[in-house]
Amino acid sequence: MSHSVLIGRLADLLGSDHVLTGEAELSPYLVDWRGRYRGAAICVVRPPDTAAVSAVVRACFDAGVAIVPQGGNTSLCGAATPAAGGETVVVSLARLNRVRAIDPANHTITVEAGCLLHAVQDAAAAAGRLFPLSLAAEGSCQIGGNLSTNAGGVHVLRYGNARDLALGLEVVLPGGEIWNGLRGLRKDNTGYDLKQLFIGAEGTLGIITAAVLKLFPLPRAVATAWLAIDSPALAVRLLGELLERFGAALTACELVSEVALGLVCRHLPGPHPRVTASPWHLLIELSAGGDEQRLRAELADFLAEAIDRGAIRDAVLAQSGEQAARLWALRENVGEAERREGPSIKHDVSLPISRLAEFIERADRALGEAFPDIRQVTFGHVGDGNLHYNQSKADTAGSVAFLAEQPAVDRLVHDLVDELGGSISAEHGIGQLKRHELLRYRSAVEIELMRALKRTLDPRGLMNPGKLL
Amino acid sequence: MSHSVLIGRLADLLGSDHVLTGEAELSPYLVDWRGRYRGAAICVVRPPDTAAVSAVVRACFDAGVAIVPQGGNTSLCGAATPAAGGETVVVSLARLNRVRAIDPANHTITVEAGCLLHAVQDAAAAAGRLFPLSLAAEGSCQIGGNLSTNAGGVHVLRYGNARDLALGLEVVLPGGEIWNGLRGLRKDNTGYDLKQLFIGAEGTLGIITAAVLKLFPLPRAVATAWLAIDSPALAVRLLGELLERFGAALTACELVSEVALGLVCRHLPGPHPRVTASPWHLLIELSAGGDEQRLRAELADFLAEAIDRGAIRDAVLAQSGEQAARLWALRENVGEAERREGPSIKHDVSLPISRLAEFIERADRALGEAFPDIRQVTFGHVGDGNLHYNQSKADTAGSVAFLAEQPAVDRLVHDLVDELGGSISAEHGIGQLKRHELLRYRSAVEIELMRALKRTLDPRGLMNPGKLL
Repeated sequence: MSHSVLIGRLADLLGSDHVLTGEAELSPYLVDWRGRYRGAAICVVRPPDTAAVSAVVRACFDAGVAIVPQGGNTSLCGAATPAAGGETVVVSLARLNRVRAIDPANHTITVEAGCLLHAVQDAAAAAGRLFPLSLAAEGSCQIGGNLSTNAGGVHVLRYGNARDLALGLEVVLPGGEIWNGLRGLRKDNTGYDLKQLFIGAEGTLGIITAAVLKLFPLPRAVATAWLAIDSPALAVRLLGELLERFGAALTACELVSEVALGLVCRHLPGPHPRVTASPWHLLIELSAGGDEQRLRAELADFLAEAIDRGAIRDAVLAQSGEQAARLWALRENVGEAERREGPSIKHDVSLPISRLAEFIERADRALGEAFPDIRQVTFGHVGDGNLHYNQSKADTAGSVAFLAEQPAVDRLVHDLVDELGGSISAEHGIGQLKRHELLRYRSAVEIELMRALKRTLDPRGLMNPGKLL
Repeated sequence: MSHSVLIGRLADLLGSDHVLTGEAELSPYLVDWRGRYRGAAICVVRPPDTAAVSAVVRACFDAGVAIVPQGGNTSLCGAATPAAGGETVVVSLARLNRVRAIDPANHTITVEAGCLLHAVQDAAAAAGRLFPLSLAAEGSCQIGGNLSTNAGGVHVLRYGNARDLALGLEVVLPGGEIWNGLRGLRKDNTGYDLKQLFIGAEGTLGIITAAVLKLFPLPRAVATAWLAIDSPALAVRLLGELLERFGAALTACELVSEVALGLVCRHLPGPHPRVTASPWHLLIELSAGGDEQRLRAELADFLAEAIDRGAIRDAVLAQSGEQAARLWALRENVGEAERREGPSIKHDVSLPISRLAEFIERADRALGEAFPDIRQVTFGHVGDGNLHYNQSKADTAGSVAFLAEQPAVDRLVHDLVDELGGSISAEHGIGQLKRHELLRYRSAVEIELMRALKRTLDPRGLMNPGKLL
């Protein structure tokens, strides 16, 4: 089938307004957020509902044309952007943006894939419930993409990854069949748990079109503090103490290096909250169902005691939601500040929490020896053993030149991660960026199992080619 | 290959002491806990470690002989017992019972499949940590079986099912290859999450030989109460209020009918704690990191207020761990008391929590009309929407005769479950018992996806045949 015949068939299905073919129209769909991958596509289609997604997938299947599912296109690994030279149809899920149902007594919400993450949070809050997935891109990423990459973010410590928040899925399979697995059940042991296949598969096994998600009670009490600390080892020790003392009330424990904080203060409009200069910082959030004054007082007690025994240098305890938001902004804007500062080599790694401090110490030293004048921007989620571990030079020209060293930098970082039992992709996925690294660090048995699954579900290899595997 | 050749080969691998062939030796491995399924086997083998499991599986694969993996053999659906007439080798995991590692700072434990659930709990506690999976069979079930059936239990409300507690697995695949996925990471998005395939697969895709499991801080404060209430609808409303007030500190919310409680008091040695007679009862547990006296006082406040407004009839708040254990015994022994009472038709269903009360009301009425003099024994996990919904007659002879009605009873119960968006197996799995029901209540697309996975991983159909699919 020629491209023009396929385009005509897709226009019959969706109306020509929703089959984009002009260069200018296509452009935003063909490049990733960081501008590192630019691909090609026959067209971009914008189906309005699941039946239309099914019809589009069937038409492409019949034509033997590959598909790239795309949500908010915020992948940091090029997972949602078509590969270069690809003769693909980009399927945008943006119009599947309805909240289908909300069941407060069951603590569930049923949403379509194209709902912005922020819209899901808002719909839950309007029903007096919390949808806890939260990450920097929440204003533009879509929940279908969050599920397809098993997104993490800042509340995984308490609420888990996107995988842990999904009770049911609706998926359009590579041949166009619709699998309706939209069950809102906490326990369901009826055969293989098929939804797990599609979560984190980066659109390579099918297109997630809707999901039933877990909700939680809206916390009535929140306490937020910024701690100035000496080292990552102390951060890990404090995490253990906070868990022992506060249990599930500890909903965030975020590490920020002084260098990372400096970038935020330089690039983001102030005034910024005043925090004590220190090599490392920790953002702590407690949230619970009880009384906020008391929760804050308990955290204040903990912090005072920790200062007394020298475990922390200083702490700022937010006295209002507005103050807490300003502390959070120091953490949430590190990625954006990095982007404004210039190019950098980024890693999204995880480690057993017990090896986190050792990793930072050894990787910093080895990189410092191999690449003098390197600048380390390190931050992340201590409670999840997840570090964003990024390198650049102090000036833009130096950083641009430094990008050529990425293979050697990656090797050093990822080899150490592997030695310490960690993962080369904690929450960003594989996409186009880490395909070759995946082959290096996963066993032949594991890679062959993945390939067997891919062959079984997508025997013609039409779903998001060039990604993950 | 003749059976005697295979037996000889297995004896070469394991030593003849660990290849059981005598009728008396085999007998306990061939019948399920409830005594409803009796199967056959060529032999039972007891490999000592993963390499030996791999060698056994390879030998059986080469001989074209099927395998039944067996843990504690406590399945309520006949999942671990060989099918009748099956020419199978039962692989007992009992000797793989080592705790390989414990990492308190990472909150993980690495255990072999044959560890008793209770032993895992104990090993965690000895390191000051909680392994929260808890269910009635914990003294005899094995963690490999818990993972293979995605076991639930009484703390799912707070900590999730077995699936949610597994960070990594080691699995012997149907051809004998070992997949080492023993990673202890909270975030790891490196391709398809293979461990999810094997969890809940009831041994039909491979044999789980070891796992890395999540641990939690040991709660320092626990408060337990027994509430006398009027109806399941009130139980659901109280659940919502408790979640709003106590959030993640609510670690159990268990429903017990007066009839179920009566069986416990009749069959289990007393003295039993005195609780107010009432059509329904609710067992509540709070646990947290703070002060126990204060937690208990907070629960007391909640209960007093609920009694004042007529939401509950009465409540007993345990004043010690020993009192709490005695209240828990009233709930935990329902299953054992039922067994002593005589045969019954059992259902393990889940529903959206918002439909739980409607289900009980409609199912009770329909069954009462269809089967006069029926006795309903209803109990379960309100927080998970999971009911154990069992029927018998008041006398043993009547109950034995009533078993013949199981198809009609199942149809009525499961049709209603399906209508209300529920599941016909919440936590017990499918095994031999519910294979035909699975085919009835799951879509053709879903069944075909499951079969495709089975064909891909186990093309010769040698893993636990006659179970699940």
